[in-house]
Amino acid sequence: MTPQSEDFSAWYNELVVQAQLVDRGPVRGTMVIRPYGYRMWELLQADLDGRIKDAGHENACFPMFIPESYLKREAEHVEGFSPELAVVTHAGGKDLEEPLVVRPTSETVIGEYMAKWIGSHRDLPLLLNQWANVVRWEMRPRMFLRTTEFLWQEGHTAHIDEDDAMRETMWALGAYAAVARELAAMPVVAGEKTPGERFAGAVRTYTIEGMMRDGRALQAGTSHYLGTNFAKAFEIQYQDEAGKLTHAHTTSWGMSTRMIGGVIMTHGDDKGLVLPPNIAPYQVVIVPIGRKEQGEQAAAEARRLGAAIKAAGVRVHVDDNRPQLSPGFKFNEWEMRGVPIRVELGMRDIENGVATVARRLPTVEGQGKEQIPLDKVAGLLPGMLADFQAFLLARAERFREDNTAVVDGWDAFAAQVASGWARAFHCGETECEDAIKADTAATPRVIPADAPEESGVCVKCGRPSAYGRRVIFGKAY
Amino acid sequence: MTPQSEDFSAWYNELVVQAQLVDRGPVRGTMVIRPYGYRMWELLQADLDGRIKDAGHENACFPMFIPESYLKREAEHVEGFSPELAVVTHAGGKDLEEPLVVRPTSETVIGEYMAKWIGSHRDLPLLLNQWANVVRWEMRPRMFLRTTEFLWQEGHTAHIDEDDAMRETMWALGAYAAVARELAAMPVVAGEKTPGERFAGAVRTYTIEGMMRDGRALQAGTSHYLGTNFAKAFEIQYQDEAGKLTHAHTTSWGMSTRMIGGVIMTHGDDKGLVLPPNIAPYQVVIVPIGRKEQGEQAAAEARRLGAAIKAAGVRVHVDDNRPQLSPGFKFNEWEMRGVPIRVELGMRDIENGVATVARRLPTVEGQGKEQIPLDKVAGLLPGMLADFQAFLLARAERFREDNTAVVDGWDAFAAQVASGWARAFHCGETECEDAIKADTAATPRVIPADAPEESGVCVKCGRPSAYGRRVIFGKAY
Repeated sequence: MTPQSEDFSAWYNELVVQAQLVDRGPVRGTMVIRPYGYRMWELLQADLDGRIKDAGHENACFPMFIPESYLKREAEHVEGFSPELAVVTHAGGKDLEEPLVVRPTSETVIGEYMAKWIGSHRDLPLLLNQWANVVRWEMRPRMFLRTTEFLWQEGHTAHIDEDDAMRETMWALGAYAAVARELAAMPVVAGEKTPGERFAGAVRTYTIEGMMRDGRALQAGTSHYLGTNFAKAFEIQYQDEAGKLTHAHTTSWGMSTRMIGGVIMTHGDDKGLVLPPNIAPYQVVIVPIGRKEQGEQAAAEARRLGAAIKAAGVRVHVDDNRPQLSPGFKFNEWEMRGVPIRVELGMRDIENGVATVARRLPTVEGQGKEQIPLDKVAGLLPGMLADFQAFLLARAERFREDNTAVVDGWDAFAAQVASGWARAFHCGETECEDAIKADTAATPRVIPADAPEESGVCVKCGRPSAYGRRVIFGKAY
Repeated sequence: MTPQSEDFSAWYNELVVQAQLVDRGPVRGTMVIRPYGYRMWELLQADLDGRIKDAGHENACFPMFIPESYLKREAEHVEGFSPELAVVTHAGGKDLEEPLVVRPTSETVIGEYMAKWIGSHRDLPLLLNQWANVVRWEMRPRMFLRTTEFLWQEGHTAHIDEDDAMRETMWALGAYAAVARELAAMPVVAGEKTPGERFAGAVRTYTIEGMMRDGRALQAGTSHYLGTNFAKAFEIQYQDEAGKLTHAHTTSWGMSTRMIGGVIMTHGDDKGLVLPPNIAPYQVVIVPIGRKEQGEQAAAEARRLGAAIKAAGVRVHVDDNRPQLSPGFKFNEWEMRGVPIRVELGMRDIENGVATVARRLPTVEGQGKEQIPLDKVAGLLPGMLADFQAFLLARAERFREDNTAVVDGWDAFAAQVASGWARAFHCGETECEDAIKADTAATPRVIPADAPEESGVCVKCGRPSAYGRRVIFGKAY
């Protein structure tokens, strides 16, 4: 496999296939998510779905075919999505009278039904979510990051006024940041996008941005305050307490299978994947060692230990039915596939009443591999996994800080965004953003919500800075 | 609302919308599944997904766009599905070189990858499942029962030989029958389909059939042994222990959102839905009674009781924020929406330390409504819900038996299938099935696996009977 340090892009493309996360689909830009990759999505989904429901949202399911005319009702929206649409023109043996768009996102179709379901202020807020596949035709597809079809959840809500809609927008942003940190061990930066990077049809777009190990930024979830743009296009109105018809304020927010790509590029190394335990399909793999009778004895002991580990609430896999492969091959394979902790069990270990426990990465100097009494393993693993999760988050946070610099002046800026993130002042003009992108390939990723209030002059054009704080610039996926 | 007894079809179409299960989609034949309907699907999904995983299957996600050429590789398959396909001809601003079919089912695309992933007998069985949306263009759409887009799971497995593949086929059938009985309280009949009713491309098709309250049959899940048909079309081969290349035997099986329609038509009545507790979004609804201050006191008590009921593991909803509606309106609404148990709480109840508990249907003579001490309610509800679930299953079973008859002779047959199911002998010829259908609209629904071995003469043509047992005939959805 190409080392990460040599060619990050080739490393990624080879690894996702070799680790059995994904396969190229039969149609350009599509992907087959294999069980190992899909399990990561299921774990993320279960966690995020719980948060969404606990906050009062309900899941629904809207059709994926949207009449072309719906998209045209919101001018910016159709302009933004038109180049990426897949269109059904023929169905049931006939040409269709009106072409159907395969949803690239569902603001329009959901807007149509919100208008139908909302009558009075008593019907608000309306808090909907759906788990769905969407299609955006991609010119430069990349597994998980930009695929023609991808999986996501899309929240769509309607509110009585801007205040309530903004509370919702920020709630979703906070939920995404928490999922990224707590499950994916991705220390994302949350904040607003500049106007040039807004969602097509939004008044304000918020994002979480993670730093990948090549210093690039990954937008890992977005939350949009849509104002009354879609409410006006679809007539989403309610009678207020005085009986007056008023437009609702709507939001939308989404997190997708792109997150799997984020996990790979935040933690992986030359040996392959490194999976945070909270999102790892197998948190622990047990490899019994030995040939023939000894192998069978070790396998039996491994299954006993596996049952005890499972009972401790750990996702464990016992690699006991591939006698044709050597232990060394298996060790390498599970390392490549990113399993956080490997337990080796040979006859000598068993005789000594111990197991050899190896972390995917040493978390403390010399603490990569250690021997643990057999009867203590199941009890110790949950704590070791929690420590490993915390270690990965801290390591990623350190990496991000090491590769982020506060810069003033164009030369320092250009040098910094070549390999990392720059915190810089910007004038706020989209033309100036475009000029920066043309020169350096970097774009404004996020106006960090927690950045100190400051002002200065634009790093590119020297005009006074906007936003009241520095903006993070970097190259993006 | 149209009474069920007057016009079953109108009753169904009105009820699914009024109960807020579903709305008509913007494109003909599509549906919007609203939160109340989607929650039923989530409950069914969680249960079935657990069974699928426990039996060793893994979830994956295959693309929904399938190159047209894939479908053509299995001759019967393409013939069966061609009239129902939706086709993408245009994407990313260009006409596509090869049209893309939106999956009507995924045997073909999954077959392509099985061929890639399977090398040796050690790779078998390969046990895959996916939860997905599929599209079949419907000429006579009906919410949940036949919609252009629907949700389902589709299991796809590959095996070393017929024996192992047949074990899998029957496992899926058994899982479906158990889900239908245990969650949906539908006493389905499981067995094989006649050759004329087989899935396009299958060697043998198995089904579970439920009887709706109009006496018609609903096919509620199918499981197919595909033999080597798809293995040959897609070159799904493995090296056996002797090193010889051999075709795998494959299966596929699916259960869909159609099940929600089955629940509605198995249990509903003139008042509306009747939901089995195990699939009810709200198992219990508490309605506080009273105006102004008294109403607020009752609502506070209702919330306290709601918390206790929730802690007992019951899905409970407190209807406490619609003071503009009368208790009578709410009672009717929750009855129409099928909530199994309603708890009424007024000031007099509270003063007497009791709550009035009303079942959606009386399970025992005179036991529809009763007063229960407030501190006993939460403890008693789980048992009452279990009893109600068992009552619905028994009632449906009785209804099915009352509307099924063993018949010999054409006149008795024709009279029986006009309103119910007939257990009759059949010659096994597809032409004869077609003649029966032309005369009576009835089709062979299932050859019941548990029917006694018998033989006789065909109820239609008088030739010797096939299958070694009677076949169930009825009109089908």
